[in-house]
Amino acid sequence: MSPQETVEAFIAAWNRMDMTAAFAMMADDIVWHNVPMEPAKGLAAVQAMMANFPPVEGCNWETHSIAANGNTVLTERTDNFTLVGGKVASLPVMGTFEVNSDGKIAQWRDYFDMGQFAREFGLGG
Amino acid sequence: MSPQETVEAFIAAWNRMDMTAAFAMMADDIVWHNVPMEPAKGLAAVQAMMANFPPVEGCNWETHSIAANGNTVLTERTDNFTLVGGKVASLPVMGTFEVNSDGKIAQWRDYFDMGQFAREFGLGG
Repeated sequence: MSPQETVEAFIAAWNRMDMTAAFAMMADDIVWHNVPMEPAKGLAAVQAMMANFPPVEGCNWETHSIAANGNTVLTERTDNFTLVGGKVASLPVMGTFEVNSDGKIAQWRDYFDMGQFAREFGLGG
Repeated sequence: MSPQETVEAFIAAWNRMDMTAAFAMMADDIVWHNVPMEPAKGLAAVQAMMANFPPVEGCNWETHSIAANGNTVLTERTDNFTLVGGKVASLPVMGTFEVNSDGKIAQWRDYFDMGQFAREFGLGG
């Protein structure tokens, strides 16, 4: 798989809520940085961070644009999440993925507005 | 110029503070959307929006990653702005540019955290 195909398969795994597949595509030393938050370093930290996210029943991440330059893949997306109870949270986001020589995702940085995240997920005041 | 070269030249114009060159590279019907804010539609609206931004004495936008897919160019950047008085505001951002058949920038969407923007520019409470 090309780096772009790897990222497309990774997003498809999220959209199936197949976290076994998604975790298998992450490098053990992955750094996942939701840029307005602290980065999670390593697969165990990623899983711990996810355990603190609001629970979701489904993902429908729409990829508007995707482009690769070497092992780096840039995406523009709307990440839709079906929350418990059926409301959909929609977050406009851009993300950079770096794929290592084993074909695993080693870096993932998502850029979005934290206020919009909080409003969509019904968090905070 | 390829779409990627157009975007690189556009960023270089900002970094020289050569707004005459930057405006000349925008389509008349450009839509510039700083995603946490309202979009500016058309060159006149872009110029009006810019007039309401905090004044800056210099730009040093660092492009970490850039990749093109057809006429769409995706970037990951740190946009550094030298404010009046010398403080530097640094904003992590990703942006998508769409270049039209005239080689002008027709769409520009930047994704960043509004809270970080406000803190870096010393705005708000």
